[in-house]
Amino acid sequence: MNAAPMFRKVALIGFGLIGGSIARGAKALGLAGEIVTTARSAETRARVRELGIVDGVVESNAEAADGADLVILCIPVGACGDVAQEIAPHLKHGAIVSDVGSVKGAVVKAMAPHLPEDIHFVPAHPVAGTENSGPDSGFAELFINRWCILTPPEGTNAEATEKLAAFWRALGANVEIMTPEHHDLVLAVTSHLPHLIAYTIVSTAEELEGVTQSEVLKFSAGGFRDFTRIAASDPTMWRDVFLTNKDAVLEMLGEFQEDLSKLTRAIRRGDGDALFDHFTRTRAIRRGIVQIGQDEAAPDFGRRHKQLGKAPE
Amino acid sequence: MNAAPMFRKVALIGFGLIGGSIARGAKALGLAGEIVTTARSAETRARVRELGIVDGVVESNAEAADGADLVILCIPVGACGDVAQEIAPHLKHGAIVSDVGSVKGAVVKAMAPHLPEDIHFVPAHPVAGTENSGPDSGFAELFINRWCILTPPEGTNAEATEKLAAFWRALGANVEIMTPEHHDLVLAVTSHLPHLIAYTIVSTAEELEGVTQSEVLKFSAGGFRDFTRIAASDPTMWRDVFLTNKDAVLEMLGEFQEDLSKLTRAIRRGDGDALFDHFTRTRAIRRGIVQIGQDEAAPDFGRRHKQLGKAPE
Repeated sequence: MNAAPMFRKVALIGFGLIGGSIARGAKALGLAGEIVTTARSAETRARVRELGIVDGVVESNAEAADGADLVILCIPVGACGDVAQEIAPHLKHGAIVSDVGSVKGAVVKAMAPHLPEDIHFVPAHPVAGTENSGPDSGFAELFINRWCILTPPEGTNAEATEKLAAFWRALGANVEIMTPEHHDLVLAVTSHLPHLIAYTIVSTAEELEGVTQSEVLKFSAGGFRDFTRIAASDPTMWRDVFLTNKDAVLEMLGEFQEDLSKLTRAIRRGDGDALFDHFTRTRAIRRGIVQIGQDEAAPDFGRRHKQLGKAPE
Repeated sequence: MNAAPMFRKVALIGFGLIGGSIARGAKALGLAGEIVTTARSAETRARVRELGIVDGVVESNAEAADGADLVILCIPVGACGDVAQEIAPHLKHGAIVSDVGSVKGAVVKAMAPHLPEDIHFVPAHPVAGTENSGPDSGFAELFINRWCILTPPEGTNAEATEKLAAFWRALGANVEIMTPEHHDLVLAVTSHLPHLIAYTIVSTAEELEGVTQSEVLKFSAGGFRDFTRIAASDPTMWRDVFLTNKDAVLEMLGEFQEDLSKLTRAIRRGDGDALFDHFTRTRAIRRGIVQIGQDEAAPDFGRRHKQLGKAPE
């Protein structure tokens, strides 16, 4: 616990996987004097009250933002503009306003025009998550050793940016700063394209003639199950990502299609050498990711196995 | 430990992830009176001797198969025909010959013509694995609660099939029987297509202009890292899979391309409802896989997280 909290009042607008994880982490570490939250649905607000993690659950975004030193929008990208407009008149002079959206260019465009000049707007994207969503899905350790990307617009107060960076570092994240445009290109390949491909292949497997759904599920350990995890992510969030990062996603999709054509041609022609070379090169990337601690070194993501000779539970 | 082993002598030809896991499991459970193995390279044979798991490491496939009651080829699909020819003259009357290949039609075609009529040929495919390979990568628990598919040709002795099924069940697997053709279609979607897509996207990310390799690695927790695991699988094994299950893979690829075109069109047109509907449907598949115990119920495959407030290791 810190002697003096980093922020007197933190407002979290939205309490899903990310909002709920920030709340749990900030509470555990004493990063805020007070954490106030709200959520769009009465059901979620009721559940957050039951959970008893935050200091206050209020009915409106305006009420949450009122007097807060740090306001973080933890909501789908498509909703950020409206919420910025709604909270703008209630923001405290000198407050930091941030978000956690997976697309940054569109968020900056939607939010910036509404925010008064006397507040500090520092958009953020913690590159972390699980396939779960909702108020119960968050956990304090979610951001540990993950990257949080900040995309402060030109001219943003450096002290405010550093203060938000310190908050994320305290939650366990590494912080990197880049432009919204570069963020959207990088994330198009490391996150948006993989989700799109996963969503596609899962539906392909769902609608096949000649292979039953039961077979798809039973034999999914051959590789398919890995894709189903990210294809179980929050539909609203991902709809908004693809609507708002359209250009970068379509560009990456074009690259992917070219590469897929090359591999398809090698298969059709029976070009074993080309396939072998390709499959050898991709191994190195995995090693790199494990080496920098961005994934499990244990095989199979460290999935657990039961003991031999015991009946399955 | 069983009082009487299921097989007096088991020969494992090849000692990679699958061969090594069978050896470890069978040894732990006492399923074989004696386990003899061999491997193509002298280096692997030396390592298997060092490991001290099996009862004998011999120099040739013929020597391994000699007098064995069960011979399992644990080698890439493309090598099975030649090895069948090599061991055929040395097989014991009434022996069971099997394999563990990920493609069954091509294996049956390549092996069956070489095998004498007095042996029982029961091809098998344990749908289990990790991204690791080599003699050190196996473990006894690999097959627990996974499926092992047997594809006995018409007219195969039912007792021999059941004996091999019992062996796999003892190792923890569930056994299903189907035709080689149906196996190859089912696995094309649950395993081969996912691997092809993963191999593709990993190379796409490797060769981008405008995004550095370091950025791809750092921000891989956004989804990309999930794909790198299966794209780190054994290149020889996967080359052979795509060469020998070409037709079914190309068919599935065609279906995938159609579905990807649909999603791409929805993105291009900004059709949020189509995206949302699609992303909602795919969630159900994940739930089904978790419900039947084919993947972790824990979020994020149960990947571990460090404790908050401690410096990363």
